[in-house]
Amino acid sequence: MRKVYLDYSATTPVKEEVVGEMLPYFTEIFGNASSIHGFGQEAKSALEKARTNIAKTLNTSADAIYFTAGGSEADNWALKGVMHANKAKGNHIITSVIEHHAILHTCEALEKEGVEVTYLPVDEQGRIDLNALEAAIRPTTVLISIMYINNEIGTMQDVKSIADIAHKHGVLFHTDAVQAYGNVKIDVQALGIDLLSVSSHKIYGPKGVGALFVRKGVRIHNLIKGGAQEKKRRAGTENIPGIMGFAKAAEIADAKLEEHVEKLTNLRERLVKGILNGIDYVKYNGHPTFRHPGNVNVCFEFIEGEALLLSLNAKGIAGSSGSACTSGSLDPSHVLLSIGLPHEIAHGSLRLTIGDFTTEEDVDYTIEALKEVVQKLRVMSPLYDRVKGGAK
Amino acid sequence: MRKVYLDYSATTPVKEEVVGEMLPYFTEIFGNASSIHGFGQEAKSALEKARTNIAKTLNTSADAIYFTAGGSEADNWALKGVMHANKAKGNHIITSVIEHHAILHTCEALEKEGVEVTYLPVDEQGRIDLNALEAAIRPTTVLISIMYINNEIGTMQDVKSIADIAHKHGVLFHTDAVQAYGNVKIDVQALGIDLLSVSSHKIYGPKGVGALFVRKGVRIHNLIKGGAQEKKRRAGTENIPGIMGFAKAAEIADAKLEEHVEKLTNLRERLVKGILNGIDYVKYNGHPTFRHPGNVNVCFEFIEGEALLLSLNAKGIAGSSGSACTSGSLDPSHVLLSIGLPHEIAHGSLRLTIGDFTTEEDVDYTIEALKEVVQKLRVMSPLYDRVKGGAK
Repeated sequence: MRKVYLDYSATTPVKEEVVGEMLPYFTEIFGNASSIHGFGQEAKSALEKARTNIAKTLNTSADAIYFTAGGSEADNWALKGVMHANKAKGNHIITSVIEHHAILHTCEALEKEGVEVTYLPVDEQGRIDLNALEAAIRPTTVLISIMYINNEIGTMQDVKSIADIAHKHGVLFHTDAVQAYGNVKIDVQALGIDLLSVSSHKIYGPKGVGALFVRKGVRIHNLIKGGAQEKKRRAGTENIPGIMGFAKAAEIADAKLEEHVEKLTNLRERLVKGILNGIDYVKYNGHPTFRHPGNVNVCFEFIEGEALLLSLNAKGIAGSSGSACTSGSLDPSHVLLSIGLPHEIAHGSLRLTIGDFTTEEDVDYTIEALKEVVQKLRVMSPLYDRVKGGAK
Repeated sequence: MRKVYLDYSATTPVKEEVVGEMLPYFTEIFGNASSIHGFGQEAKSALEKARTNIAKTLNTSADAIYFTAGGSEADNWALKGVMHANKAKGNHIITSVIEHHAILHTCEALEKEGVEVTYLPVDEQGRIDLNALEAAIRPTTVLISIMYINNEIGTMQDVKSIADIAHKHGVLFHTDAVQAYGNVKIDVQALGIDLLSVSSHKIYGPKGVGALFVRKGVRIHNLIKGGAQEKKRRAGTENIPGIMGFAKAAEIADAKLEEHVEKLTNLRERLVKGILNGIDYVKYNGHPTFRHPGNVNVCFEFIEGEALLLSLNAKGIAGSSGSACTSGSLDPSHVLLSIGLPHEIAHGSLRLTIGDFTTEEDVDYTIEALKEVVQKLRVMSPLYDRVKGGAK
């Protein structure tokens, strides 16, 4: 059976050249980067090269990059670290209702500590209103945290304008760029970003690695306490093989960004066109242009998302109903509800995310499979039957 | 030049069979373990197999094992998570003065939140006094956290008795077992351990992975918030290749524990004998028998530890002055000061830690190198000159 992986926003395979970059650091250059002997210094020098390479992709300097175990840790750290370190300034965060749970659940934890959180709504395409953002700023606002690209519907925010508004009012700006990194050029200086979270396994690097960019001068407390690693800001022996792989993946992503975006956008449009032309009662979610190049999020009326996924899986196609992180939950996606979809339609959602190894054949196969599967599932739906009956 | 790595307590090389176990999970079985499609379920099934294997080595069930990014995160999580979740019970922790900084700095952070911490002293061999431990327990004591084996001087605590005392008073017991795991049989049920931190890269597994054992029924809050991974207790896409490597390393360590301990103990005694017989004015730190099988910690009077390390490094020998985690600091080791060594002697400390790839030739080469280097450095020391002069 054909295997079609269309869940690149959940995770990506590690590219062969990335694995190749990592291998020597498991068995040969295996030292602890904090050790002063030769084994340690070799590791340390690799670590700092990796840090410089990641920094370059963001147009910043190496000393602003702190490695973490992934995007979630970076998000947790950014919010807790900044709020705890800036209590003298205030106790208010502004974020949005469609953030990743690493942000939303951290905000909830901060609320229990007395931090006040404004959750901005989004429009039907998933964008926040910049006027509403500015109006929400208080004298006590310390931080605005708005994700760059949404992980479910792929909508991209106007990050530059958000940063401008933040700075006009002396507020810090953090963005969860886990889905954006490698899919759009991010220049933290030009955009005016103060803190930014990224993850390796979304850009064809290994799992278990990420980074937090912290602009020099931003006050932040530590999240993981202990040893003096990462300039005393993040304890724990540095994961050198993982970091080397991450940096290599970032370097490749940066060098091939244009061609990657063009390829994904073309395949995305082909997939969207095939679905919209071939299947009725379907809604394409998110923004048509300010969008992740590989993200397709659609709702099929009269269908359960889970049944759809399982039927696609039986045809070798891997998609997702929302984000992978919430798949343990039976609730409909908080993102789809936030863009105004009713429960029953949000339940019939499908996220297909295209990546570097996707082909036109994969897309065409998926379109045909979807037509068949959606038709089959709808035949079993009494509601669809009634609608079709009425439409006849 | 001969290369002799004697810093296994800082980190270990990853064993070839461990790398082999990891490789397919980078490029082939690369799915997100939270995804419901085939790619995800393959990863999920590997993840749960790894969890079961780790659990077996500790004689517990898989549902008590939570993967983390390493020992530091596990330590941070154990302390913060338990104290935050058990506020109704009290606000007091008992720990020791020789803990790893991942414990000590987390305790300091908790103190700022109003938690009260008792830091138990240790005797000259690095062990806590069990009567003092029991006397320190208050009605508000929630947690006792005492490390299993100290990372600098290798001293092993009487973990079973500590657990018994804790439970007699209804107090939870956590142990940082990062140095113990793989070097002593740990049966969490027989020992009565409630929480335990372990790390992969100390047992010939990859860096960036660890685990926290949490006995079923123990109340603990999350440290990293976000997605529903790890039974909703630790957010972040699971690092499957790392976890597979960790589990493989743990399995090997468990299967070969006896032979590993015997080999290391023999080499350690050979090294200690060689040093004590061949060099004067030297102190062997830690406990003679309740000790990490591969740990040698010695202080050479009239010598600076850093000069010693650099001279050894020039001869291809990798050792450490204390733990790798504190190498950024110029302060003498808090552990050596805690066992009563004066500053000037603590400054001349050397930790040599033996591992699975160490040979008798390595040990003998190191003894000869040490004799030469110590002699050279002492010749430059005016203090040594005076002592030798007086001794004539």
